[in-house]
Amino acid sequence: MLPATVLLEILGFIAAILTTMSFLPQALRIRRQGSAADVSLTMYLMMATGQALWLIYGFVIGSPSLVAANVVSISFVAWVLAMKFQDIKRQRAVGLHRASAAPAE
Amino acid sequence: MLPATVLLEILGFIAAILTTMSFLPQALRIRRQGSAADVSLTMYLMMATGQALWLIYGFVIGSPSLVAANVVSISFVAWVLAMKFQDIKRQRAVGLHRASAAPAE
Repeated sequence: MLPATVLLEILGFIAAILTTMSFLPQALRIRRQGSAADVSLTMYLMMATGQALWLIYGFVIGSPSLVAANVVSISFVAWVLAMKFQDIKRQRAVGLHRASAAPAE
Repeated sequence: MLPATVLLEILGFIAAILTTMSFLPQALRIRRQGSAADVSLTMYLMMATGQALWLIYGFVIGSPSLVAANVVSISFVAWVLAMKFQDIKRQRAVGLHRASAAPAE
């Protein structure tokens, strides 16, 4: 029989896998569409901040599951945010191009 | 100056607010559309299971932030799942109705 702390961390890691995996469909969808236009910037910034705080919390209380879960989910969220910023930059460029091409519109 | 454990739980609660709030936009969208057709059942079932395990983990390690965060996010996810099941039931009813109304189609 495994010690209780090991069993607890196994439970925590299963929890971590299940909750971080739920970020995958969104990431895959963005990759497929090549655009992050339909995700909310505010929501993802809130999520990234929240996960960073969970990471600190996990470090302080010494929880390997919490640290692992948040390292992985921050990676997903950071990737989505990077795509989102690329999108915003692209849209701004298109906007500027349109504005200079058709100033009378 | 507050004791370190209190400060830590304040940090944990801010993390909890930020990460659980990120479920709100999806829930509000479903409420607005009156349908959960565009959310993935598998993903939400995974999320609910993961959060239930985090809840147990939080109880065992004695983390108020983790318990609070997962109670709230399970409520959101349970509500989305309830809407989703209603949708599936409705679609099945429409399907059966169509099948009996136009058997030759």
